[in-house]
Amino acid sequence: MDPGLTRCGVGVVEGVAGRPLTMIGVGVVRTPADADLGSRLVAIEQGIEQWLDEHRPECVAVERVFSQHNVRTVMGTAQASAVALLCASRRGIPVALHTPSEVKAAVTGSGRADKAQVGAMVTRLLRLGAPPKPADAADALALAICHIWRAPAQNRLQQAVALHTSKGRTA
Amino acid sequence: MDPGLTRCGVGVVEGVAGRPLTMIGVGVVRTPADADLGSRLVAIEQGIEQWLDEHRPECVAVERVFSQHNVRTVMGTAQASAVALLCASRRGIPVALHTPSEVKAAVTGSGRADKAQVGAMVTRLLRLGAPPKPADAADALALAICHIWRAPAQNRLQQAVALHTSKGRTA
Repeated sequence: MDPGLTRCGVGVVEGVAGRPLTMIGVGVVRTPADADLGSRLVAIEQGIEQWLDEHRPECVAVERVFSQHNVRTVMGTAQASAVALLCASRRGIPVALHTPSEVKAAVTGSGRADKAQVGAMVTRLLRLGAPPKPADAADALALAICHIWRAPAQNRLQQAVALHTSKGRTA
Repeated sequence: MDPGLTRCGVGVVEGVAGRPLTMIGVGVVRTPADADLGSRLVAIEQGIEQWLDEHRPECVAVERVFSQHNVRTVMGTAQASAVALLCASRRGIPVALHTPSEVKAAVTGSGRADKAQVGAMVTRLLRLGAPPKPADAADALALAICHIWRAPAQNRLQQAVALHTSKGRTA
């Protein structure tokens, strides 16, 4: 999840490191900029709950918020990310945080890659017909890919494959 | 509510502007600094839900987060405040935000008053035996007082009293 008050990117990816990944779903939870803050957070919660209900992910990765951007945006992002973390943790789903540069480095090889580069690599890695739009949706998929590649210990499917492979070797 | 990841101050005050106010409850929702962020947000949600269940406030005032403090603290405060806003808004309770200087100005007459001054005025205005501890608890009460004084239009009890008074006058 790429949290934001106006647009919360959500991407669902299945797979393990070292094998082709599959996009299961992608989208954006939007809230109207003219609504009051409390209502926007409630709408984000409802939107995220729907995604979690539908896809029941085994892990949720959320972009770690930094304050290098402008202050007003960061506050909203921090608050939207709190809702994402809350929704996942409340269900007992493990949550991981990755910084934007970790995500860019994971999918493009450079922590300073631009949005177009990230979109292009997400498109290639998930074998999509076109880069997902808007950028928040592509960013959410990049985050999911980054997490699958960076955190094998948190990925039960990955553990199962590793176990199976090692069993195969020892057999 | 004075939001924070480590300590969330909660104060419940009853009354209308121009009349003595009554403290109904005060306390702090704490979360362990060594817990992961998601678990802390879940614990804050549970703590706030208990307060809302018990007191069923007609309005919730939350301190507006500013970024003048250090960045790490502000992120946590923004995230804790998101949970407070979410809990209240989800129940349809009107939420108001007041800045720290608005709160200080309301209860002490100066937007730059220190914690001791705020604590002393809260003690006096609510006719308490001693200043509430910790400071987050006193700050939450100050915020509630500020809200009652600043936002008569949002206070149904206040409206009822105003209506009654005006009826009395016109009778």
